[in-house]
Formats: sequence, structure tokens, C-alpha cells
Amino acid sequence: MANYIGIDIGGMSIKAGIVDENGKILCKDTIVPRVKEGQDAIAKDMFDLCENVLAKAGMKKEDIAGVGFGSPGTVDTERGLITFAANLGFNKFYLLKEFGKYWKVKAAVGNDANCAALGETKFGSGQNKQNTFFVTLGTGVGTGFIVDGKILTGHKGGGSEGGHICIRMNGEKCSCGERGCWEAYASATALIKQTEIALQKNPDSIMKECLENGKVTGRTAFEGARRGDKTALKVVNTYAKYVATGIVLLVNVFRPEVIMIGGGVSNAGDILLSRIKKYVSRHCFGNAKINPVPQIEIAKLGNDAGIIGAASLVME
Amino acid sequence: MANYIGIDIGGMSIKAGIVDENGKILCKDTIVPRVKEGQDAIAKDMFDLCENVLAKAGMKKEDIAGVGFGSPGTVDTERGLITFAANLGFNKFYLLKEFGKYWKVKAAVGNDANCAALGETKFGSGQNKQNTFFVTLGTGVGTGFIVDGKILTGHKGGGSEGGHICIRMNGEKCSCGERGCWEAYASATALIKQTEIALQKNPDSIMKECLENGKVTGRTAFEGARRGDKTALKVVNTYAKYVATGIVLLVNVFRPEVIMIGGGVSNAGDILLSRIKKYVSRHCFGNAKINPVPQIEIAKLGNDAGIIGAASLVME
Repeated sequence: MANYIGIDIGGMSIKAGIVDENGKILCKDTIVPRVKEGQDAIAKDMFDLCENVLAKAGMKKEDIAGVGFGSPGTVDTERGLITFAANLGFNKFYLLKEFGKYWKVKAAVGNDANCAALGETKFGSGQNKQNTFFVTLGTGVGTGFIVDGKILTGHKGGGSEGGHICIRMNGEKCSCGERGCWEAYASATALIKQTEIALQKNPDSIMKECLENGKVTGRTAFEGARRGDKTALKVVNTYAKYVATGIVLLVNVFRPEVIMIGGGVSNAGDILLSRIKKYVSRHCFGNAKINPVPQIEIAKLGNDAGIIGAASLVME
Repeated sequence: MANYIGIDIGGMSIKAGIVDENGKILCKDTIVPRVKEGQDAIAKDMFDLCENVLAKAGMKKEDIAGVGFGSPGTVDTERGLITFAANLGFNKFYLLKEFGKYWKVKAAVGNDANCAALGETKFGSGQNKQNTFFVTLGTGVGTGFIVDGKILTGHKGGGSEGGHICIRMNGEKCSCGERGCWEAYASATALIKQTEIALQKNPDSIMKECLENGKVTGRTAFEGARRGDKTALKVVNTYAKYVATGIVLLVNVFRPEVIMIGGGVSNAGDILLSRIKKYVSRHCFGNAKINPVPQIEIAKLGNDAGIIGAASLVME
């Protein structure tokens, strides 16, 4: 059985895992990247991490059929180039060229959300499907689209910025500088803001008992809603509609078989998922007999999606 | 040099053309489909049309390397099936199976907007590009996406309904029953409505001299704007922003190299195109140094895009 290394690059930690051809992680290791010391130092950290995880697993380089990297930011997969990734200070970082000096093995690099989409499609909730997309509801809203079994990257990796689809012209200000982006309505950040506003207007809401260290989180509204609080239910209903509006838009364009929802907010589970499903099935374009409404699932791979997805890049 | 037949199926007329491998139409013919007599009659009409165009060109079946069909509605390309096309009364019409009984030649069927996108990409304003999309501004708004050189169809042909991306939640009512669809802002139908409202509010606008048979058309506002009328300029500016908002959204998802704009409204030319270009270059996600802003062009193939696009389906 062939084994691969998947490397999930983040600003706080870089994780590596040895992944078998069934998407199972055999061994994991992690390292804190020396972000302040620049991209050459981070590259060195990543290559050291490969050695570490191999040693930990009792394996040698010869036991590995390929190495895949998932990075935040804009990634030009064809050139093996991380064009830009703010959190890591990457600026035109030719990762695969550097890696090739260190280890001559099949290698690939992709954007992290795209890798997660691929990993979820190969080994998670989108298994055996050719057309899927992945939405991550976290600090921002990330997307990855699988079209006919392949990642959609756009020209030079500039596409797949699904958080920045405009769902309301002249709407809420987004962190990107534009107005009305899906991310400004459907991210955890937006949900927290929506919850805070509702709580200010309704100070008697049960939600005040659901704070964590005195603060609203992405869980507050769901917890209140589970306890039957009307204000919380209203927040959850509206938020679910925001998430679903972007999903409907993307369904009309891509018409996937499965949509996979990940990120911190997806831990809310069925209270969110059931509302999204209802809205999507009612509002997608066309008659469901002609155009099947996609399945919608919570992503299964959780925190391992990054490693498994990166490894998937180099699997045949 | 190989020759192909492209068949552009419409409710009012079915057009066929013999197309060479450079996308040049050598000979054309047309027929009025017997829509009321059902899909078998229409199939017969199409097959007769093939004979007619061959005879007109002095060619035989053996001179043709493939036949492609472009149809409105939902087309399941894998099954050679037109799932549904209201204007033609097609309902689960297995076109390629029927066609195979009549002529054993390489054949394919696709959605007409997708065919136009492919034709424009192979032989029109998107030449030599792998990632493009085509937008047609007519009675509705149609889209076709080319991803890595291939048409994006979605599962069972249910995707690519780009006219029905929601750009304004709770916005204008769309013909599809939903609210806020791009089509409700950017179609010729929407432009006419926007022009009529502006003219009612500003009865002294020069636009009143630009009516055709006493009626506002998709040309009225552009004509008024060219003559320097302030009300008309405002209509044009707002309309261009609506068109551009949908384009920016789709650029953020697909990041193509070229966007091709067709349909009746695109005849307005530079007065519209220049405004769209300006808005898109300012509002696309990310820094233009990292993510190049796509070229935006008026489609070149005009009314022939359907025939050439359909023929392109069967070219290698």
C-alpha cells in the first residue's frame, strides 16, 4: 500500500501526517513555523518536519510515494508557487522548487481550502462524487470546488474566493474592503456580531447565560436556540438563511452532488444543517425533478482535512 | 481538413451549419421546427435539415467527422439527453439515441449557452484560453463557463444557471420566482424596465426621442447617453454596475483569463464595456498584482456562436 505525506501549513503551526491510500493518517507531527525569519526558514522547518514524522513512524523517504502541501493564500499550483500568503509572509515563494532541492519525490502544492475540499471529496462526506463543493464557516468563509473530480483553481490560482461573492449589493462591509460579501453575513465573525446586536436589543434573552468568559461566541446563539429562546432562534434562523443564500447561488452555478460544510460553526450540527437544507431545497433554481437538489453534509474529516487533503494532491 | 455539422436548436428556428476545423461556417441552412407536433417531429426536422445542408454544400455524410447539437434548457450531456426545454416541449428527449438510429457518426449535445461559450473560446474572443466565461445579456441572462478547456455542466447538466445568482437578497422579483437574481437586474428586460421608470420620472429626457415605434427598447438608454442626456447616463451607469456586480462575483469564483459578453445588449459596445471594465478592475477580490484582472471582450461570433459552438462539441 502506498503512503504519502500531507503538510498543512498555517501561521500558528505546520502539521504533517503520513497518510495511506485510504486517507487514513498513520502518524502525525507538528512544528511552529519561524514566521519572523522569512520563507527560507519556514521551508527549512517544513523539511525538518518531514524528517521528524518519518522518524516517528519508523519510515524512510523511500517509503513515501508523494508529498502534498496545503497553504493559505493564493497558490499557483502549476508553477508550485505560493504567490502570496499574508499570515506566513510568503511572497512569490517557489515552494516546490525549494522542496525539490531537498527531496526528489512527486510533490504538489494547493490552497488549503481547496485541499480540504479534495480530501473531503475523496475520503470524507463527499466520497465517490465527481462534483462537490466545500464551505468552511470560520473567521472568514472559505470555499473549495471540485469539478469533474478536479480542484477548480482559476487562472494562476486566483479563483475559488467564494467568501467574496456579493449576496447583497451595497450591503454589510466586508474585511476585503467590498460590501455585501457572503463572508460579511455567514462567517463566525458575522454570526458573533449578529448575536451581540440581538442580545443588546433583548437583554433578557437566555443567551446572556450562554456567554463564555463573559463573551458572545459562535456557539451562543445555537445554545440559546436549543434552550428555546426566541431571540436566539431568530438569530439562528437569519444566520442559516445567510449561509443558505450563498449556497443556493453556488448550487445554481455548479450544481454539485454534495455540499460539505466545515469550520468551527459547523459544530452546531443539525440545528443549523436542518435549516440550511430546508432553505436550499426550496430556493435552488429549477424543478427538483429536473435538477436534483444536492445533499448537504457536515464535513467529516475535521482538523485532519488539511493533512489528508494535502496528501490527496499527490494520490493518483 | 475535417468538417463538422453544428445545429443550433431554438423554438422559432433550428439552424444548421457545416463548420470547418478553423471554426469557419462553409454553408448554412435553417428550418422552422414543428413544435406543436412533439419531439419526434422536431427530431425528424433536424435530421432533414442535416440532409438539406449537406445537399446545399454538395457534400455527403462521409465528409462529416461529427455532429453537435446546442439546445436550450437542461441538457444531460453524458446521456445525450435534453432533460427539459420549455420552448420546444422537450421532456426527457434522448436526442443522441434517436440521432444514432438515423446516422452513425460522432455526436454530442450541450446546452446552447455552454456551446456559445465553447465556440467563443475556441474561435472567438477567448481564443487560446483555458479558463473563460461567457455572459449573454438578452431577454434573460445566460452563462457558460469553460474550466481548464472544458464546459462546466454541473451534475446532470443542472449547473451554469448564472442568471440566477442572487446579487441582492430580498431584491427585485425574478421570472424564476426568486428575488434578487442577477437576471432581474442585468437582462435586456430589466434594462428596459429601468429605462421606462427613469423616463417616467424625467419626461423631458432626450430618451423620449430615442423610442422605437413609441416604445423603450434595450437601445434607448444607450442612445440617450451617447447624446449626453443626464437621465440616460444615469440609467447606463446603474445598469453597467448591475452587470459588473455579477461579473465580479463570478470572477472571484472562477478567475478566468477572459470574459466574453454577448446577447442583444452587448451591441451597445464601448459605452457599456468601458464602464463594466472599470468597475470590475476596481472591485475584484485581491490585489491585481497577485490575481490578474481578466480581460473583458464583446463576443465576436454573434448569431453564428450557436452553430460554431455546437460543432465545437465534437471537435478534438
